[in-house]
Amino acid sequence: MIKVGVVGYGYWGPNLVRNFSVSRHFQVVAVAENKPAARETVARHYPSVLACEDAAELVARDDIDALAIATPVASHFPIARAALQSGKHVLVEKPLCRCVLEGEELIELAARMNRVLMVDHTFLFTGAVQTIRRLINRGDLGKLSYFDSMRVNLGLFQPDINCLWDLAPHDLSIIDHLWNDKVVAMDISGYCHINPTSPDMIYLTLHYARDAVAHLNLSWMSPVKVRRFAIGGTDRMLIWDDLDQDQKIRIYDSGIEFRSDDERATIIPDYRIGDILSPCIPRHEALSAVIEHFANVIKRDEQSIMDGTRGLQVVAILAEAQCLLDRRLRDLQKLRRGS
Amino acid sequence: MIKVGVVGYGYWGPNLVRNFSVSRHFQVVAVAENKPAARETVARHYPSVLACEDAAELVARDDIDALAIATPVASHFPIARAALQSGKHVLVEKPLCRCVLEGEELIELAARMNRVLMVDHTFLFTGAVQTIRRLINRGDLGKLSYFDSMRVNLGLFQPDINCLWDLAPHDLSIIDHLWNDKVVAMDISGYCHINPTSPDMIYLTLHYARDAVAHLNLSWMSPVKVRRFAIGGTDRMLIWDDLDQDQKIRIYDSGIEFRSDDERATIIPDYRIGDILSPCIPRHEALSAVIEHFANVIKRDEQSIMDGTRGLQVVAILAEAQCLLDRRLRDLQKLRRGS
Amino acid sequence: MIKVGVVGYGYWGPNLVRNFSVSRHFQVVAVAENKPAARETVARHYPSVLACEDAAELVARDDIDALAIATPVASHFPIARAALQSGKHVLVEKPLCRCVLEGEELIELAARMNRVLMVDHTFLFTGAVQTIRRLINRGDLGKLSYFDSMRVNLGLFQPDINCLWDLAPHDLSIIDHLWNDKVVAMDISGYCHINPTSPDMIYLTLHYARDAVAHLNLSWMSPVKVRRFAIGGTDRMLIWDDLDQDQKIRIYDSGIEFRSDDERATIIPDYRIGDILSPCIPRHEALSAVIEHFANVIKRDEQSIMDGTRGLQVVAILAEAQCLLDRRLRDLQKLRRGS
Amino acid sequence: MIKVGVVGYGYWGPNLVRNFSVSRHFQVVAVAENKPAARETVARHYPSVLACEDAAELVARDDIDALAIATPVASHFPIARAALQSGKHVLVEKPLCRCVLEGEELIELAARMNRVLMVDHTFLFTGAVQTIRRLINRGDLGKLSYFDSMRVNLGLFQPDINCLWDLAPHDLSIIDHLWNDKVVAMDISGYCHINPTSPDMIYLTLHYARDAVAHLNLSWMSPVKVRRFAIGGTDRMLIWDDLDQDQKIRIYDSGIEFRSDDERATIIPDYRIGDILSPCIPRHEALSAVIEHFANVIKRDEQSIMDGTRGLQVVAILAEAQCLLDRRLRDLQKLRRGS
Repeated sequence: MIKVGVVGYGYWGPNLVRNFSVSRHFQVVAVAENKPAARETVARHYPSVLACEDAAELVARDDIDALAIATPVASHFPIARAALQSGKHVLVEKPLCRCVLEGEELIELAARMNRVLMVDHTFLFTGAVQTIRRLINRGDLGKLSYFDSMRVNLGLFQPDINCLWDLAPHDLSIIDHLWNDKVVAMDISGYCHINPTSPDMIYLTLHYARDAVAHLNLSWMSPVKVRRFAIGGTDRMLIWDDLDQDQKIRIYDSGIEFRSDDERATIIPDYRIGDILSPCIPRHEALSAVIEHFANVIKRDEQSIMDGTRGLQVVAILAEAQCLLDRRLRDLQKLRRGS
Repeated sequence: MIKVGVVGYGYWGPNLVRNFSVSRHFQVVAVAENKPAARETVARHYPSVLACEDAAELVARDDIDALAIATPVASHFPIARAALQSGKHVLVEKPLCRCVLEGEELIELAARMNRVLMVDHTFLFTGAVQTIRRLINRGDLGKLSYFDSMRVNLGLFQPDINCLWDLAPHDLSIIDHLWNDKVVAMDISGYCHINPTSPDMIYLTLHYARDAVAHLNLSWMSPVKVRRFAIGGTDRMLIWDDLDQDQKIRIYDSGIEFRSDDERATIIPDYRIGDILSPCIPRHEALSAVIEHFANVIKRDEQSIMDGTRGLQVVAILAEAQCLLDRRLRDLQKLRRGS
Repeated sequence: MIKVGVVGYGYWGPNLVRNFSVSRHFQVVAVAENKPAARETVARHYPSVLACEDAAELVARDDIDALAIATPVASHFPIARAALQSGKHVLVEKPLCRCVLEGEELIELAARMNRVLMVDHTFLFTGAVQTIRRLINRGDLGKLSYFDSMRVNLGLFQPDINCLWDLAPHDLSIIDHLWNDKVVAMDISGYCHINPTSPDMIYLTLHYARDAVAHLNLSWMSPVKVRRFAIGGTDRMLIWDDLDQDQKIRIYDSGIEFRSDDERATIIPDYRIGDILSPCIPRHEALSAVIEHFANVIKRDEQSIMDGTRGLQVVAILAEAQCLLDRRLRDLQKLRRGS
Repeated sequence: MIKVGVVGYGYWGPNLVRNFSVSRHFQVVAVAENKPAARETVARHYPSVLACEDAAELVARDDIDALAIATPVASHFPIARAALQSGKHVLVEKPLCRCVLEGEELIELAARMNRVLMVDHTFLFTGAVQTIRRLINRGDLGKLSYFDSMRVNLGLFQPDINCLWDLAPHDLSIIDHLWNDKVVAMDISGYCHINPTSPDMIYLTLHYARDAVAHLNLSWMSPVKVRRFAIGGTDRMLIWDDLDQDQKIRIYDSGIEFRSDDERATIIPDYRIGDILSPCIPRHEALSAVIEHFANVIKRDEQSIMDGTRGLQVVAILAEAQCLLDRRLRDLQKLRRGS
């Protein structure tokens, strides 16, 4: 049994504790949480688990092998660093950290201490993403050309991060998992309803080296929740609507057909409108699979699909996008004032 | 009775002829179309209408008061100019023309000749847009902040224009009609599947002077057709799904509430999830109303809501967007080659 | 060219005339319609077609080979009889007639005169029904066990027929076409909102000889239009939603699995939840195919799939259902009075 | 604190225990369950709760004030009777019991012992039913005329009850709660796929004294789950789709308008197609409200809305429907054999 401590018992922490508790690989030893009410809940639901106030207490304990960190993003780095330094395996909530330097230090430290550093990109373990990955790897879609994601809802506003850092990690980790390519350029723009320096609507376009494009429409200001992710391929296209209970994934045997490369510029292509297939998606709690994966990686039975390096890729894109976005928002302010 | 000629009997021309035919204001005198098969169809369906080959024949006739032009975009300018010069009123299909200079010349010419120049932005006369405009003008949505349009489908590829010039005129004319504001900045990006210089996927973001943003996701490469247009306001938000037969428009009495401007940066706002109202949308053929409007403007009974100046605004945005897009596509090509 | 006359230019007549006009097999000679305004419309749209007042004028003409009858149901029989007697082929709108005796006389007369008698059950020529029939005949669904139809909308109330005679012919002709079996028993019940002897809501259950059941929920009093038709089979099930533009038909690879007949009574079966397939449905106007079929049957190139005998089957069920329904409504009235 | 015991820890029992546990009114003392694995789960999740094998142990204990019974239907009566006899309040899962005689005995016994007998018709405490009831009581729908329910899904087959007793109690208790009227007649029919004496598809029509009709389409053999409940009123109509997350209830300001009663038989009425309103439905766990209600009724702070008498009404309809159904199925078998 791997002895695990969980830092943070806010929104996601309870899910971690619940899943660690029922796993045959883990024993939850302690939870650190600074809100007294949350500690009381831990005590009531898990009488055998120690509820303490400070993450440092968990880091200091020798009877803990692994730490799961579900705190605000700014604290991921110091806690993860301390945990790795004290020889613990680490599972961090997404995003891994705030900037590339932090991420690089954590990766290097994990390598030096010979410990596992993993980022909880839960979506990679959903039945939907697993099904899509299988389709792509089997070649069912042909050569991919685009990813188009609409990930919008009303709130929830978060005090420490904006809409980009809240929503984009899902898409970025999924695309990295499915396509694994380098971003050569990006376009970003946004809009701030509430806090003038923290956008609540983001439009991000990523251009990949192997000639594919990803577009993310992210918003905390939509009256309805939408989780729509489209993938274009030369042979088939796919739409994943995560809120559709009956048909989460639809594969369209539709597309454009043309005869030769020479004809591309002059000839209007033909359309192929074909059947639509909705594969049956296995239903399981993705977080439970994340936790199994964490155990297997610790035991060296599996190679991690979301280790520090993959997590850092996501942070690197977020950090660069944020930088471009800040500049764009400043420019827009000036342009509006000048208009 | 206004005597009207129609140039072009391809996709839209038959709709114009059919609607002019049943209007009590117009008499269709002649149709010009260079495809013989289409001319035969005209002759069969409208025995009393002259079917000729060349637009010039219509321009030359004295018994024609007005010309409707439904030809490829590149020919809008020369035909409209000739028609105005010969003293005819002109209704041009959208977009008005290819560039600002062409549009300015047409507007000036129409003024000089004291003739009507109108652009057929048909959507402005749909029940949906009329209902939305009424809601906005009545203040039901509060102060507007965003327009978010997804206008995607599979094809139809057009030989003379790309996806921007095909799809964006709808959104641009609608936003202009609803919001009537100056664009102070724009971001654009795209992707080419077929013709490497003519994008079939476009992401366009427009920043308006009075602090609103519009985002257009336009594509000819989506396996499903989507016509989704969302509007955000401080009091209510709205989604117009033009393909939904029962609930084309949904008004959400939902939003974000905060207490004071000072608190914006620090306090997490509250959410209001309220009722959803789908107003009953009157069903009528929008083009029929366009044609009534054209007659009333010719008779000086109405001020046009889509005259040359409004049409030129759309062209000006398209032309600037195209310019930025060309540069961006060249940059992306270099960045990919260099990567 | 078969010379055809059309009787009735109300709701469906114009569709018949339009489709006969463009068919290469037919020439529309005359239309009979007692409303002067409708006759004027005919004259305007089809200058070469004679518009007369009375069906008898068409029956009397020697230059007419075939008559299409789109008048109220009560007049189907006398007009069709006169037409057959005068040696004309006949296409009657559904339902064929009001009772079995009328239908038998028409069938016998058509046989005697060696003329075609066909009922326009248009739905049989839709892409949806053709696709479903192919699936069933290919054995994709296994042995069929149920048909469940919900065919409801708001009105349109008709002066001459109730909701049963208006809506059920669609389902009855479709089921007959797909399943072709004898009804051994039926259950019917209804409710009258407007006219106390003419139900506007009907629940009809048909029990077929080869152990299948059909249930029809028919209503003129539903606030939304629903056209949902489900078919259960031992291997697959199917739902046809005629108002769904993207996925009219969904085939569910789902079902119940059990091991042996002995176990049926005691063992709880397993469920199989599988993929969902939406076949691409060819889009064409079904009425155009009906008219081609009519021509081919007249020319003896095809055997009719909706001749008088098939049409009579539908009428026979309607007549029996109406009889049971009348009795049930009288009983219910007494029971309510007595309660 | 009311001390409560729960009998049965299968599908629903865990929900009862969880909700009793967090209620400030109840303390869960013991759970009775004959499956050892389920008892172990109780012990692990609720260390302070006694897990015993037999309901009789709970009935015998003096430190238990109330018993919740979530066992197969056949055992409801003996367990509830023993519990009432030993002076305990009783909450029984729906349906209350198997027949009218059982129900009457329980009601009489509860009255004699001065104890609460309540049936857990959980749906009555959902936000949806509460909202609908408010609308009806406020007169928003006008005079009601119909209830039309489609409650279909794939399985779950149950060993002790058929599809009627599994699904109809929901609709019957809801209609009783909303409309509270006497059934004067019913029509029923069904179909058996698996067990030839236990239908898995049921069509039930109820005719109410005050001139309303209810139609229930119940099935365990539908490839998709549907929970659609329509209500017709003279002023407005309503559709409750319990699986729609955004718009559970839609109120249609649509209907039929006619001028006078005399005109009913002859004149075709007008249609009114109006706005559609989806009220915001409060989200809460209905079972938690049921348990609060149980506490308040025990404390005599509230009158029960689902006491034994209301529960018996549901059983009475089920029992009569079953009787008619059995006869109909026998008749159908004979008719098929004879055909």
